[in-house]
This record gives sequence, structure tokens and C-alpha cells, in this order.
Amino acid sequence: MARSLDLENRLLREIAQVRAVDVHSHVQAQEPFARSLRDLLGYHYYTELAHSAGMSAEMLAPELPDEQAIPALLEALAAANNTVQYGWLMELSRELFGFTQGKLAAGNWEPLARAVRNAAARPARAREIMELSRIEKVFLTNNFDEALDAIDADLFVPTLRADALVFRLADAHVREALEHVSDVSVTDGSSLRDALAGVVERFVRAGARSAAISLPPRFRTQAVTAREFGAALGRALRGGKQDSGDETPLQSGVLFALVGLCRDFGLPLQVMYGVVRDAYQHGVPQGSDLPEAGDTLAGLLPLLNAFPEVTFCLSVLSDSQRQELASYGWILRNVVLSGHWWYANVPAYIEGDLAARLQSVPKTKLIGYYSDMYKLEFGLAKFSMFRRILARVLAEEFVEPGFGTEEDALAVARLLLHDNAVRIFGLGD
Amino acid sequence: MARSLDLENRLLREIAQVRAVDVHSHVQAQEPFARSLRDLLGYHYYTELAHSAGMSAEMLAPELPDEQAIPALLEALAAANNTVQYGWLMELSRELFGFTQGKLAAGNWEPLARAVRNAAARPARAREIMELSRIEKVFLTNNFDEALDAIDADLFVPTLRADALVFRLADAHVREALEHVSDVSVTDGSSLRDALAGVVERFVRAGARSAAISLPPRFRTQAVTAREFGAALGRALRGGKQDSGDETPLQSGVLFALVGLCRDFGLPLQVMYGVVRDAYQHGVPQGSDLPEAGDTLAGLLPLLNAFPEVTFCLSVLSDSQRQELASYGWILRNVVLSGHWWYANVPAYIEGDLAARLQSVPKTKLIGYYSDMYKLEFGLAKFSMFRRILARVLAEEFVEPGFGTEEDALAVARLLLHDNAVRIFGLGD
Amino acid sequence: MARSLDLENRLLREIAQVRAVDVHSHVQAQEPFARSLRDLLGYHYYTELAHSAGMSAEMLAPELPDEQAIPALLEALAAANNTVQYGWLMELSRELFGFTQGKLAAGNWEPLARAVRNAAARPARAREIMELSRIEKVFLTNNFDEALDAIDADLFVPTLRADALVFRLADAHVREALEHVSDVSVTDGSSLRDALAGVVERFVRAGARSAAISLPPRFRTQAVTAREFGAALGRALRGGKQDSGDETPLQSGVLFALVGLCRDFGLPLQVMYGVVRDAYQHGVPQGSDLPEAGDTLAGLLPLLNAFPEVTFCLSVLSDSQRQELASYGWILRNVVLSGHWWYANVPAYIEGDLAARLQSVPKTKLIGYYSDMYKLEFGLAKFSMFRRILARVLAEEFVEPGFGTEEDALAVARLLLHDNAVRIFGLGD
Repeated sequence: MARSLDLENRLLREIAQVRAVDVHSHVQAQEPFARSLRDLLGYHYYTELAHSAGMSAEMLAPELPDEQAIPALLEALAAANNTVQYGWLMELSRELFGFTQGKLAAGNWEPLARAVRNAAARPARAREIMELSRIEKVFLTNNFDEALDAIDADLFVPTLRADALVFRLADAHVREALEHVSDVSVTDGSSLRDALAGVVERFVRAGARSAAISLPPRFRTQAVTAREFGAALGRALRGGKQDSGDETPLQSGVLFALVGLCRDFGLPLQVMYGVVRDAYQHGVPQGSDLPEAGDTLAGLLPLLNAFPEVTFCLSVLSDSQRQELASYGWILRNVVLSGHWWYANVPAYIEGDLAARLQSVPKTKLIGYYSDMYKLEFGLAKFSMFRRILARVLAEEFVEPGFGTEEDALAVARLLLHDNAVRIFGLGD
Repeated sequence: MARSLDLENRLLREIAQVRAVDVHSHVQAQEPFARSLRDLLGYHYYTELAHSAGMSAEMLAPELPDEQAIPALLEALAAANNTVQYGWLMELSRELFGFTQGKLAAGNWEPLARAVRNAAARPARAREIMELSRIEKVFLTNNFDEALDAIDADLFVPTLRADALVFRLADAHVREALEHVSDVSVTDGSSLRDALAGVVERFVRAGARSAAISLPPRFRTQAVTAREFGAALGRALRGGKQDSGDETPLQSGVLFALVGLCRDFGLPLQVMYGVVRDAYQHGVPQGSDLPEAGDTLAGLLPLLNAFPEVTFCLSVLSDSQRQELASYGWILRNVVLSGHWWYANVPAYIEGDLAARLQSVPKTKLIGYYSDMYKLEFGLAKFSMFRRILARVLAEEFVEPGFGTEEDALAVARLLLHDNAVRIFGLGD
Repeated sequence: MARSLDLENRLLREIAQVRAVDVHSHVQAQEPFARSLRDLLGYHYYTELAHSAGMSAEMLAPELPDEQAIPALLEALAAANNTVQYGWLMELSRELFGFTQGKLAAGNWEPLARAVRNAAARPARAREIMELSRIEKVFLTNNFDEALDAIDADLFVPTLRADALVFRLADAHVREALEHVSDVSVTDGSSLRDALAGVVERFVRAGARSAAISLPPRFRTQAVTAREFGAALGRALRGGKQDSGDETPLQSGVLFALVGLCRDFGLPLQVMYGVVRDAYQHGVPQGSDLPEAGDTLAGLLPLLNAFPEVTFCLSVLSDSQRQELASYGWILRNVVLSGHWWYANVPAYIEGDLAARLQSVPKTKLIGYYSDMYKLEFGLAKFSMFRRILARVLAEEFVEPGFGTEEDALAVARLLLHDNAVRIFGLGD
């Protein structure tokens, strides 16, 4: 008997038709798709690879004309045309803009640029891209003080991003924005909680179904007493010199308060764990963050244990925690595994991670994928990549070894791409 | 040429017939197999998955009737029917109890429950299960003060579990049990060693061929002087407040004393490295422990270096140490790699780990697998899973790339499943 | 459609013909190939495996006759004939010495020993081996005070090994050798820099195209002020008791000075990260070092950020940093990923690492492989192994998923084996 691709291809045909929910993106509701090829090439995946491959960062200056900036980028990107990131660009150019050449180069980008501009002018373009991508809903990531009106609820779901509140509350701008948006004067733990409640309520009214936060490596959560939190918060609010020991009680205090509100309002928390911001000093914008090896998720346990009623959708950036994450999803009832984030969003890692998750974690606790995209076009290519990997893993690691039938495999695929997200975030409500 | 499954299938047919030695289990000699379906479903793999997938822990109350408890478990487990753990349940139900349906559900469990009850009543059922599983011997894990008579030496091999001695010697109950079982009054380092020698001797007389211990992550061994150990032990025995620095000298002191006895009595030590006990506060019984990422085995080096004559059979819980473990087996003469433990006992991890071990560690230093089971029935399913993976890895990573012939591959399989365990633990003696 | 090996085999036929550059070895220019079978079997891969599998270290005594030493080694090595290391020995014996038997044993080694001796006597044997291995250049690793004349520049490229300078400058022998070779009296930071400049200049004049250093795990680089460095250096040079805090400023100070010279002289730095020296106290010579799990490359960031103009060719020993390393190559312009080092040089690891690198890092920033060999013969077997893995990964992870054509795949292979090394180290200059 020969190992066959038939099964994989049959699965893929079905999986390609499943309408997906994209639970994490950075799409801007007012500007959800690319107006120009430069918008597409401005995605940090391309600018950072071009820079890494040798392009001067000066080529990214907005004032440069397309005729100078685009060829410079494409010439450098030729050195990265082996990568999956480059593959996304080619796939979306082909599928969304009819670009049929194998490589994008200094000599052939202009028709593509025209196609992008023309498509951008079409009415209901966002919806059109999502239809072509078989993506039903796209979650946004919104700062706590961002305007939430004029978000098309048919397409988008806002998410409260909590990073600034947890990490920069001592910053006067953040506090003022918080007071402004909540109409609460923040003077102590109790009024802070009120202000945060105001924020969460505002988001829930605007249709938000989750909060989200990205955490640095070595982040340690800790249940702090009201008194410890009050003291640390007091010093932070007075803006004076803080105690060296204040960081953990302050951050944990705010985070626990927020998660308490998640519980009260029935919101899951999406946790993206393990990014070192600004690690590379010479990086292009958004191209300076890195994973850090050798860490553990154990620092989250005090939080996960303190809120058994809150669903935590966890993603990790480093493969150091890949198996630990699966183990958490395996026994912690309130932990859902979510997608393959950023530096882990590479087929070789996804394949192994996905196989292990499918083999050890209840299928109802797996959110297969999210795009993390800034422009809608990338959802098509990124989800396509995931659909292919999903078909391959289901064929080789699920149906062939006898864990289930082909029908079972498709049921799993529907859960991972759509049904679990709908259930966990209450999208049908 | 097409990649063929013929080779893999031929290898599997032979490997399926190799009678295995199971060097680590939690089977109770007096109650080695399931009396009921509820016994089988009570295995923590199922209770923890059902709870993780949403079942209330109250459904595990022993006083609930089968008609309430079993459907509740099975309904929750349906959410985990993608997992390998569920696969074990189906495979043993089919192979040992003639259950032929693809899924186990609220509507079809009663015939299986009857089959389990009927089979349990058959004479020599333990031997029958082991024959059907092609498992020749099963190692038990016995507390130091456990009764060791009435262990069927044809089937079982006792193992001295050292956890309580190393980690809870300061507990008066543990000390009293030690004094009772050894008939030595423990007052200092020297009398402790005598008491431990009494324990080891008792186990050896009862047929034990190894000691075993599970260690937490970040465990650091350290050669301590008799004086340091005596001081720490003195404080522990007096039961008063211990020095904060006592933990390492006390634990290492006891561990080194035990390993010295392993050397004197010719016993290998089985080390299961890296489990965080009670990490998940809301877990069901035996479902609250986790691995911890980011650790190293380097903390064991003082111990491994101090006893070059003792064979250490190492297992790790976290894939953080998977390659480190292989490297230890590669150059440390007294290190044997043993099986795929608990959270690492998932095909996606086993495949990669096994391939790397076979490619870099002498084949005589690999104990392929152990079941870690509580009831004999699981040995069939778990070893079957491993036999399939072994056939696949030997086909794809050994025979096809030309490392050896098909015959060589089968010789490797026999070592991993049987011969190495016999030689290392002196089972033929 | 059946998954086919045709593509893989076609790719391999071409890849086998690419003349490679071997950027890291420990070959001695004066004694580059084996004079005897014992020379080959003396490679630490065989002595450590034989010892690990049970051979007494006494069998390695140089005074033992071949008739005693070789059979002892081969008998022990039979227990490791499953490993890739053993596979290298068989492949080079077949391809370079016409040894056609499947195993090397106590009964059949003598004809091979004769073949090795006869081949060693042939003129231009080094060149012949490299031709047969399709290796164009081999980098050497030379101590800073080593004689550099009489290196055949057609075959070999010297490399300045910086370990002693960074880690053992406080050792009077090292300092004296530095003063002798540079003709500079080292009394402070400034004269140290002059001495180092003398060393680097001498290497550049002798044809060196890079410096190299191996670093222990947990190594942390730190930009130190001239004053801090001067103080730490002063204490080190006076040879008295050093401050406990001196290690980092001293080592980082020397390392930064050296990397500043790399910048000035246009030399890349090859960094081999993560080896614990002498971890196994009972190991045979060169068989006592280990990787350490759980570490991060983040300790290198201060150095990588301080010298954006210097190319760092990074290798890691532990798979803990495998994905972190790929991420560094992805965004850090001055980081090149280099080969698969020592304990990571095992097909199961190489396959996964290579796939991830090809999917996420610009192809111009990947040095596919180096041999790390002590004798030229091993280059053939090690590079052959890598060529096979490269063909397999390019087939399954690059051409089949549509990242590029078969021609694109071969272009990638040429970069990884040859062109990138030529460009990065300026070999064509």
C-alpha cells in the first residue's frame, strides 16, 4: 500500500469551504484593506525581511515615491522568496488580484499595484475579501480609549486590548485617558476598578466578546492583597519614585481586576504570551520584537487558578512552551489553546504543534487559527496555509492512524476553524 | 519510486509479537485489573479530560450510580474523542472486551460494562490480559512501607518508590513508618542510612530490581558533607523550624544515601524528572500535576557524576529536556533513556524523540516504553500505540535512510521492548 | 496521487554535485587526514559512544597495540551501530576506502586499516578526499598563538579562535603568549586592544576570513565602560584575587574589543553557543561536554545590537534555542544561521530546524552546514548526510507545498552549501 495524498486532498477540498472565524487581528475598522500595493508591502513581515536581507531602512520613508520604494523592497525580498511570508504575498496577489506570475519583481509590480488600487475602489470590498477568504468574522484589537462606533458588526468584533492598562498605568497619559473614557477619577484601588468597569462595559455595549493582552516572557502573576495593590497603585498614581518591588503587585493588581470584570461580563481573555518588545535596536518599525527561549507558563498559574470561571485563550510565541501549553489545555478546564502566533506561525512549527494538540487536548478547546493581520488581504493567505496544514495533519495523524473517520476529521476541522470560536466567544448570542 | 507502507507494515507485524517488559506502572498487585467499566473510566486520563471538557467534578463521586456517573463521563469525553487517550480506551475495549463500535457513548456502554465485569471474574485474568498484550512482566511502584508479600513474581516486579523518603522525611508519619519497617531508630545520618538499608534489603528480598523517584522541576542535587547532612537532618527529625537552606542538603543527603544503597545492592534508579505537583488547584484527583517548561537536567549532574556505577533510567516530563536527555544518554555511561512519560506520551512527541534517540544513542541504552498504568488493561493499548510508532520510525528513519537492514531494525525493536530491560534490571538472574 | 520520492531523488542527484564550503572544522593543516584506522576511530564520536556503551576508558591508551584497542572499540561500537555517528563511519569507509561490508567488526577491520594506511601515503591525499567529498574549502580553527604558515590556501582557510582570549586571559600563559605573538606588553585596556589588533592582523595576513568563539550556556554579554573594563582587567593582569563581579565585565570587555576588530577588519564572528565544558566527570577525552536545556540567546543581544556592521554566524547546541535562533535570523540583519552543531547534528533535529529556517529566514542568511571534523574523511559522510536531508526537506517542505519550483530549490541548495559562505566570508576576494 502506498501512502496516499488522496485523503489529504479530499479533506482539503472540504476544509477550504469552512467559513472561519478569525479571533485575533489588528485590522482597523475604518481602513480594513489595502489601498495600495505599498500598503500590502508595508506589513512588517515584508519590511523586516527586506531589511534583514540587506535593504536600507531609509527605503521605508513614506515620502519616497512608489517607483523608488517598491523596487527596493522587492529586490531585497527576492532574498526571502523562500519563506512562507513571501508565499502569503504571492498567494493573496494571485487569489485576490489576479497576479499570475511566480515572483513579484522590480519589473512586474505595476500591474499588481493597479489591481490593488482598482479593487480598493470597489464597494463592499471588505466583505468581498472576506467572502473570497471564507472568513465570516474578524476580531479587531482596540485600545481601551479607542472610538468603537462605526464598526461594521456584520464583519467585525471589537476586542479590548488591555496592555496599556496593565503595563503603563503609571503613565499620566494612560491614566488621563482612562479617567476620560470612564468618567471616573482614579485615586485608589476601588476607583480604579470602577474606571475599568466603565471601560469593559463600553466595550461590551459595542459588541466586544473578549479582552486581550500580550505579555512579556518571565511575566509572573500573583494574587495581591487589596492593601499591597493599593500601596503600589498609590505610588504609581502619585507619579513619584516607585518601589522596586511595585511592578508585580501593580501589574497583577490591574490584571486581576480586569479578569474579575471578564468574569462578571462573561468575556474570555485572550493571552498572547512571551514577546520581548524592542529587543532588536536596529529593527524597522514593528520589526524589533522577539521571542525568548527557556521560559515557562508557570507564572500564569496564579491567575488561571484564581479565575476558574474565566476562559483563557492562550497563545505562545516561543516553542519552549509548546508542549507545556498543550498540557495546560489538557487538564485546565478554563484554558483554550489558540492559534499559532507570529514567530510560531511557520508551517514546520504549526504541523508539530497541531498534531500534538489534536492528539492530547479535547477538540472543543482548540481555536485552530487566527491571522494577526493588519489588512484583510492577509487573512486569505494565512488561513489558506493553515487549512492545508490542517488537512495534512488530519490525514496523517488522525485518519490514517485510526483516531477517527474522514467525517470525524471534518467535524474536528469545523470546530477548529469556526464552531469553537462561536461557542467560546458567544458569537451566536 | 513511491514511499511505501509495506516495510512499515512488515515491521509492525513482527514488533507486535515481541513480548515486552513494562518497567514502570502503578498497578496494584492485589487488584491489577479493572473490576468494572467504572474502574477503567476512573483512570485520571479520562476523569481529567472529561472535567477539562466541561464535566462537573461532582460526577466523580463514588456514591453515584453507574447509570448517572458513566453517561456523564462519556458525554464529556465525546469532546475528547480526538485524543490518543480516548484512542487507548477504544483499542482496549475492542481487543480485550470485544467492543466493536467506533465510539463509546451514553447509549452503548452497558454491554461493555457487562463484558468488563464478566472478564474480571475469569480465573488468571491478569495473566490473560498480559498474554493478550504481549507483555511479559510489569513493574509495580511500591511505597517503602508497603506489604510486599503476595506479589505474583511470575507477572510482577516490585519497585521501591523513594519519593516519601526524600521529600517527606520531616513528616513524623513517614519517619515512624521508616522506623517501623526497618526496625531502626532514626536519630542521625548513620542510623538513617541503616534504616534505609533495611528498606532496600526488604525490597531486594521481595524481588525488587530497581528504585524509583519522581522529581520536581528545578530540582538540584548536591553532594553534601556528612556534617551538613547531619545538621539538616537533626533539625528535620526534631520537627522544629528548619533553616531555609535545609531543603537541598536534606533531600540530597537522603537521595545520595539511597543511591549509595542502589550501588551496593546493584539496583538501577528510575528517575522521572520534572513534575509540578498540584499545579492546577481545581483539578480532579490525580489530574492536577503539570510539566514545567524551560528547565534543565543539569541539576542531576552532581548525582550522576557521584555514582558512575549506578545505572540511572531517566524520563522527562517536558519536551524542554528532550534533546538534553538524548545527549546525556549519548555520553554518560550510567544513563539509560526510558520511555515517554505522561504528558510526553503523545505520538507527535514520541515520534520525534524516538527518532532522535535511535539516531544518536547506543541501542543498548534505550528502554523503549513503559505504561505508567494503574490497571493492566491499559498496557495493551499503550504498548500497541508505541509498537506502531516504533515500526513507523524504524521504517522511515532507520531502514529507508540506510542505517540498517530490516533485520537490524527488528533487533533494535527487541532491545527496546524487551532485552534491554532484562539486562539492565537483571530479570534473567 | 502518491507522494513520490522521484522529486527528492532528482534533487539529491544535483545537490550531491554542489561543491560545498565547510566553514567550521578542527582539521590540522599539517595532519589533515587519518594516517590509520585508529586515527579515524579516535574521533571523540566513537570513543565516547564506545565508552558510553560499556567499553573501559583504558582501551583508549595510545600504547595499546591496534590488535587490542581496535577490536575493543568495535565490539563496544556494535551497541551503537544504530546511530548516525556509526553511519558516518560506514559511509566514509565505503566511499573513501572501498570497504563494502555492512558492519565493521573485530573480524573484518584489518583490510580497512590497510586501506587507510595505503591511502594516507598517496600524494595530494587531502585534495583527493576533498574532491571525492565535493568540498571546495575547509575552514580551520586556530588558536591565537598558533603558527599559520604552511597552510595550503587552496584547500584551507584559517579562523581565529577567540576562546582563550575571552575566557582565560587571567591565565599567565595566555597573557604571555598574547604578548609574545603581538609583541605588545599588555598592561591595560588600551594595550590589550593593541595586542588583540596584532593578533587579528596576523590572522588576516595569513588568510583568515573570520573569528570564532564557543560560549557556555547562560553567557551574558554586556557593554562595559572603559573604566569598568580597565578595573577588572587590572585585577586579572595582576593575577591577584578577582572581584566576584569581574567575570562579566572582563569577558565582555575582551569580547567587545575583539568584535570591534572584526568590524574594523571586515571579519564575521562565528559564535557556537551553549556548551557546558567538563560536565561529565567520567567522560573520555573530548567526550565530557554537554548542552544545557532551558537557556536563551537573549544574553547575546547587547553584543548583537552593539555591532550592527558585524555579521554573526550563530550556531546553537541545544534545541531549546532552535526557534529563537530562527527568529533572530528572521529580523536581525547581522545574524546568519550556521549549520547544525554537535549534539544538534542529528537528522531528526536537522530536518525540523532546516524546514523552519527555510520557511522563515531569507535564504541568503543560511549557511547550511559545516562538518566540525578533526580529520577530512568525516566531511564526506557528514556533508552527504546533510545533502540527503536537504533534498528531502526541499522536496517535502518547499517544492511540494508550492513555495518554489525544482529550479528554485536547487538555487536554494547552492546558496546553503556554497554561495552564501563565499559571499559572507569574502572567499572570492
